[in-house]
Amino acid sequence: MRRGRPGYDQQGILDVAVAAFNEFGYDATSMGVLADRLGLSKSAIYHHFASKDEILDRALDTALGALEGVLAEADTATGRAADRLDLVLRGAVHVLVDKLPYVTLLLRVRGNTEVERRALARRRAFDKEVTSLVSEAQAEGSLRSDIDASVVSRLAFGMINSIVEWYRPGGREDADNLAGDVTAVALDGLRMPTSNRVQELLG
Amino acid sequence: MRRGRPGYDQQGILDVAVAAFNEFGYDATSMGVLADRLGLSKSAIYHHFASKDEILDRALDTALGALEGVLAEADTATGRAADRLDLVLRGAVHVLVDKLPYVTLLLRVRGNTEVERRALARRRAFDKEVTSLVSEAQAEGSLRSDIDASVVSRLAFGMINSIVEWYRPGGREDADNLAGDVTAVALDGLRMPTSNRVQELLG
Repeated sequence: MRRGRPGYDQQGILDVAVAAFNEFGYDATSMGVLADRLGLSKSAIYHHFASKDEILDRALDTALGALEGVLAEADTATGRAADRLDLVLRGAVHVLVDKLPYVTLLLRVRGNTEVERRALARRRAFDKEVTSLVSEAQAEGSLRSDIDASVVSRLAFGMINSIVEWYRPGGREDADNLAGDVTAVALDGLRMPTSNRVQELLG
Repeated sequence: MRRGRPGYDQQGILDVAVAAFNEFGYDATSMGVLADRLGLSKSAIYHHFASKDEILDRALDTALGALEGVLAEADTATGRAADRLDLVLRGAVHVLVDKLPYVTLLLRVRGNTEVERRALARRRAFDKEVTSLVSEAQAEGSLRSDIDASVVSRLAFGMINSIVEWYRPGGREDADNLAGDVTAVALDGLRMPTSNRVQELLG
């Protein structure tokens, strides 16, 4: 517990604020509550952030920036679109594990404020890019094309985002294992080769 | 809009209550708010339900009972465990689409009251049975066994449950299509046979 200790930097304040937003909700967490949790005066917080809204903005940007970085990195990779999608899915799992409270906060945003609406717009842009990548993979023949690309992207990220519900750092699965599990399920499927589909593929 | 019309039966009251709980939150929805929405007196509601808690109990039981029914039905099916899991995943998607507001309410339960804690216990029992089915399929060799069975079950249901976030009745995808998409992704995977995995399977 760091409560009462002086000397939080901006990142430290952000971490405590995100934990409080996740616990009590953004609206229910006043600057007074935050100051109390940090053992700081409100003016000490205002030294780092102009408003509670700015804290939220920075917190959501942390999660969104990391996810956008995953897409940007996959864009620079060569190879088939399916393999770039593999990189995106794995990268997103790593972001989720590394920045669990930040992604949790992002996933709860409902668009009640201008800051939240901007975050939702960035999420939609991210989803759209993932959907394009899926379409590209379907067009080049590396992903099955009998499922709508936007449904594919929603189901894959539905699976990834659900991890925030149960993942606890330090558990049996580390980020690499979990990323491998997600791509194994989504890209390669759970069924063994005795299954109908592989029989079909074998012709 | 049925507001102001008399003659709600128990199911009609339940439907309106579930919509209100989803919109405002259970705590924020008083019996007075419900009475107002229904155009009924509070005592008319109490004629059907002893308390707001009983309404919640009945609503959560609607979703849980339907999901448990899917498991029970799959249990009576013959065939490999992987095929019974296929039935469970498809059945769960149908329940979600048919009872979207009820499942949405169930997925938001956090265990704040005794009714909510009982619902969470039933969800855990459901998850445990799905995990057993996955283990059985892994043991019989019909599902890959390199992923922990409880992680498989969480990822598959994470994908299914995420559908409540975006599914709108009357959209392009009906329940059958969506159920087919979910099992296609989870069981058979998205990659085409040029992929590494199928190459591996082909030896």
